[in-house]
Amino acid sequence: MEFSSKLLENAVNEISRLPGIGKRSALRLVLYLLKQPNETTLSLAKSLTELRQEISYCKSCHNLSENPICEICSNNKRNTEVLCIVEDIRDVMAIENTNQYNGLYHVLGGIISPIDGIGPKDLNIESLVEKIKSKKIKELIFALSSTLEADTTNYYIYKTVSSYKIKITAIARGISVGNELEYTDEITLGRSISRRVPYETSIIE
Amino acid sequence: MEFSSKLLENAVNEISRLPGIGKRSALRLVLYLLKQPNETTLSLAKSLTELRQEISYCKSCHNLSENPICEICSNNKRNTEVLCIVEDIRDVMAIENTNQYNGLYHVLGGIISPIDGIGPKDLNIESLVEKIKSKKIKELIFALSSTLEADTTNYYIYKTVSSYKIKITAIARGISVGNELEYTDEITLGRSISRRVPYETSIIE
Repeated sequence: MEFSSKLLENAVNEISRLPGIGKRSALRLVLYLLKQPNETTLSLAKSLTELRQEISYCKSCHNLSENPICEICSNNKRNTEVLCIVEDIRDVMAIENTNQYNGLYHVLGGIISPIDGIGPKDLNIESLVEKIKSKKIKELIFALSSTLEADTTNYYIYKTVSSYKIKITAIARGISVGNELEYTDEITLGRSISRRVPYETSIIE
Repeated sequence: MEFSSKLLENAVNEISRLPGIGKRSALRLVLYLLKQPNETTLSLAKSLTELRQEISYCKSCHNLSENPICEICSNNKRNTEVLCIVEDIRDVMAIENTNQYNGLYHVLGGIISPIDGIGPKDLNIESLVEKIKSKKIKELIFALSSTLEADTTNYYIYKTVSSYKIKITAIARGISVGNELEYTDEITLGRSISRRVPYETSIIE
């Protein structure tokens, strides 16, 4: 792709470095921005700069935060005895949106993935062990995705912390609410039968 | 979507204003940027700001340019008697890449589309007429896409400039090179038969 302008080329190259955006999409975005008022581009650039320069990570749970300790960790109404292990901040947001969890989080910042060169040392596992050692944590909830890498990560953490006396649980796997049985994949369906739970009328209230 | 940080929310909102990028994709891009070194974000923001503040349009052909007159218009080796009408700068780049055209361009900046509220006055048609009046232009080539809106735009321009003595041509439509006949749509195939051209051995050389 040849550009008539160096400025245009720079902008397209910078945007196309983002994941999932190729040169053509980047050019489309740049031309869109050029058709909009100046302020659209300037406020986009400003918000990115501010974000990158001012945001930091919570020192306790590694969630994104503007303060040294995030809102969740500093909320004294939450149950500090339960810790939910998640991969990244999107999972915190997803669980928070359910309004079903009142404990704290620990954001790993990724999962163990040898293919991508991500080992246990690249994740926030050391600080998790420190937290378990020094604080009164009674339950650890594994809330990673359902992939091989996530299972490996769960197992690694389990092995690392199993010497401490804490309850270790994992979020329930099964057929999604509203999903049709016949379209569910075999593994999920098989597991949901073998790991069936007592019938409770309370869950459909 | 609830965010734990105002800065994060701002950045996601700004990015999701871009066409084709929803909130979830925007969040993914922001988290990607946060995992990269500071410089990635800062140089992206810088290139966007510079682009928007410093780039301008060629006063002659309305192509994007860093100078008042773009490189193509100021190139004295090009044929100034032929003018190719295109929708936007991407089309200029596409035609330039073919190395088959040596004339000048006129970028409309869009096509007539009543549904999107774009009328002839929103396009660079007035300056086109001025150019035809004042300069020695012998041929006008319509190189818009093959849509109803583009046909309308072609016809509008044709009507507007038909009183001036210039040759008006359009880029050839037909079956793409390398395409199989049986998979070509009926309209294209029909037109390519009814508007057949003399057989030339030179084109396959």
